[in-house]
Amino acid sequence: MSKASIIGAYNTQFGSFVKKNRETKEITDLKSIDELTYEAVQGALKDAGVEGKDIDGVWVGTCAPGLFANQEHMAALAIAADPGLRYKPATRCEDACASSSVALYDALYAVESGRCKTALVLGVEKMNLLTTKGVTHALATCSHWESEGANGMTFPGLFAEYAKGYQAQYGISDEELRKMLAHVSALGYKNGVENPLAHFGAGGPSDKMKLFTAEAVLNIPDEKNPMIAAPLRLHDCSLVTDGAAALVITTTENALAISSRVVEIAGIGHSNELLAIKDRDNMYEMIGGKRAKDLAFKEAGITIADVDLAEVHDCFTINQLLCTEALGLSKDGRAGYDYMEGKFTRDSECPVNISGGLKSKGHPVGATGASMHTLLYKQLVGEPIGVKPSKGQPEIGVTLNVGGSSATNCVSVLKRLK
Amino acid sequence: MSKASIIGAYNTQFGSFVKKNRETKEITDLKSIDELTYEAVQGALKDAGVEGKDIDGVWVGTCAPGLFANQEHMAALAIAADPGLRYKPATRCEDACASSSVALYDALYAVESGRCKTALVLGVEKMNLLTTKGVTHALATCSHWESEGANGMTFPGLFAEYAKGYQAQYGISDEELRKMLAHVSALGYKNGVENPLAHFGAGGPSDKMKLFTAEAVLNIPDEKNPMIAAPLRLHDCSLVTDGAAALVITTTENALAISSRVVEIAGIGHSNELLAIKDRDNMYEMIGGKRAKDLAFKEAGITIADVDLAEVHDCFTINQLLCTEALGLSKDGRAGYDYMEGKFTRDSECPVNISGGLKSKGHPVGATGASMHTLLYKQLVGEPIGVKPSKGQPEIGVTLNVGGSSATNCVSVLKRLK
Repeated sequence: MSKASIIGAYNTQFGSFVKKNRETKEITDLKSIDELTYEAVQGALKDAGVEGKDIDGVWVGTCAPGLFANQEHMAALAIAADPGLRYKPATRCEDACASSSVALYDALYAVESGRCKTALVLGVEKMNLLTTKGVTHALATCSHWESEGANGMTFPGLFAEYAKGYQAQYGISDEELRKMLAHVSALGYKNGVENPLAHFGAGGPSDKMKLFTAEAVLNIPDEKNPMIAAPLRLHDCSLVTDGAAALVITTTENALAISSRVVEIAGIGHSNELLAIKDRDNMYEMIGGKRAKDLAFKEAGITIADVDLAEVHDCFTINQLLCTEALGLSKDGRAGYDYMEGKFTRDSECPVNISGGLKSKGHPVGATGASMHTLLYKQLVGEPIGVKPSKGQPEIGVTLNVGGSSATNCVSVLKRLK
Repeated sequence: MSKASIIGAYNTQFGSFVKKNRETKEITDLKSIDELTYEAVQGALKDAGVEGKDIDGVWVGTCAPGLFANQEHMAALAIAADPGLRYKPATRCEDACASSSVALYDALYAVESGRCKTALVLGVEKMNLLTTKGVTHALATCSHWESEGANGMTFPGLFAEYAKGYQAQYGISDEELRKMLAHVSALGYKNGVENPLAHFGAGGPSDKMKLFTAEAVLNIPDEKNPMIAAPLRLHDCSLVTDGAAALVITTTENALAISSRVVEIAGIGHSNELLAIKDRDNMYEMIGGKRAKDLAFKEAGITIADVDLAEVHDCFTINQLLCTEALGLSKDGRAGYDYMEGKFTRDSECPVNISGGLKSKGHPVGATGASMHTLLYKQLVGEPIGVKPSKGQPEIGVTLNVGGSSATNCVSVLKRLK
């Protein structure tokens, strides 16, 4: 089995691309799911220096486009982006918010099997055509509907259960947790404002409010930072975002022959935990994430000490703590303290979410995995979008992309070859 | 690249498993998507003689479970079917009504890559919780929403365009087409009534009405066979069905070592056509289906003369004509006449849809691909569910599973090894 490498990638602007009429409540689409798709596919092909005809298969990660945008069958839609893609095999994959990581993995298997030499992977989501209520419902279908969604459980509610479990396990007071989480969101806001593609970028709300320190986040008046699902507040939640990202992968052998910007997918881990949280062993650690990390690191032959940069799944600030521990960047129960001590900033040994993360870059759910891989690819080939790590050019990056309430856990180790 | 083989498969009963209260309009679920999933997964494991712990990855094909049953993230749900599946990688795939064929292909790539020795593939859909209007909307999201669904185009409407294109190309009158299509539906009804798992099985509507000849279908009064989208009538449409099917695949080497019932996936073809029908070259042939057939037959090293049995995608009767031509069982423009001449019955050289097809077995959209492969597997290992071919034990079977308006086209060649 020969490995595969990324040779090009593209991330669209992330944001809320709709116009909402306050009087009529009408929502006008300013950038459709079709447009996001075509831009990302064309951008990735161009970045990789290949054409549609060079692609042997297309994989599309998207979470719930039928609910968000009335459009299932997105794989068939994507091939219209380039005439050379017509008649190629195209497959949509979904594992909630990890949809485009699993799409990448299925593309990887096809390349490793020898069926495809070169494959295109797209992640896309158009979320803002719905009202908040509609978005909440669409996301809730990614929980176990029978035991969770149907009983009114929302995603903030599910991650609130993790927050409470984490507090109970490690004896963390409400006040202390609030401080920890404020450090996490402030770090995201600080990094994101320098990412030109971020939903909350320069001139955006977090920039205007200067939410770049935990103090600033803690000082937001309660009415502007209301409790969504205790102990999680508005500023603990990631953004509802429209966006897309795409990558071109090929055999490492071919990559080294045709490209000067080669990042190998050195190891992957994909582990699914039981969907219903009532069936989990505990609510204070990401067991599936730890398993995925072990698999990916073993395949890549690395330890966490080798990692220069990590993009992790901060759908809620509490989950950034769990991800940081799952990767082994913090000891269990210590991530909150580590963030309070200022670890994982751009100046650290291993910056976390230098892109701004889901909190600030935005979280177009099905696009998030592809976006994580895209932004790491760009960092690793020395063309960072946004902030660079202070310590110098990174060589190895890691993604931890989570689907639902960590029912899907995907870890990739990306390694620059040239 | 070593090939993969099927070593076990299971198909649930197909049907409409809800109770509808005529007064309150309330719909009660009698067999949930969870139950369908668990039954199929457990059944396939048992049929293959393996346990969950032996499975290295799970792929789930389902079309629009978020719209039909409020449940996305079906891959994470499926692993609850067996304790040994917990923490395994699980991925949902979707290409409209070809969702579980593309799930099978992604599983196949993982097996061929060496990442998985043994994989489980599930297809599932729970459609009957919605009203007809809801089902029509959910299916319309599998068309190109912007140019089709949003303008009121439905799936009967899309296939009516193919019917009209076919008539125009080959000079077929309305009356003649109606006869051709009546032969197709009668054949489905006749076969289906002997399939104990069929939605329209023994004692069902087609049995009560004895719709086993074209004459019987043509004699249905217009009010009981209304025009849905001219020239297609109610009895040209497949059924809205709840159901699931699952398969276990493994390397052929392992299959031959551990199983006495081995059917190799000898060749596959997967070709995606542009989603919007306005962008197609013509409306009288299944170009993507022909390409998929060419790829699959080339890989398997066969011609159509070698095929003993075919399951094709009769979502609408007109599409059975197009599928029959795409596989080369009929010459272009001749399938209707061939059906009128009684070809493709159980007594023919190559029976088509001996299961009853989507018209009579039923069409739980995301489950259909897995069901086609399951029923062929059972035929090829000499354990047919329903009617057997009269000419004796089949050795080679072919599936043609279509997604949407033939935007996805999947052909598999299955070959009994022992």
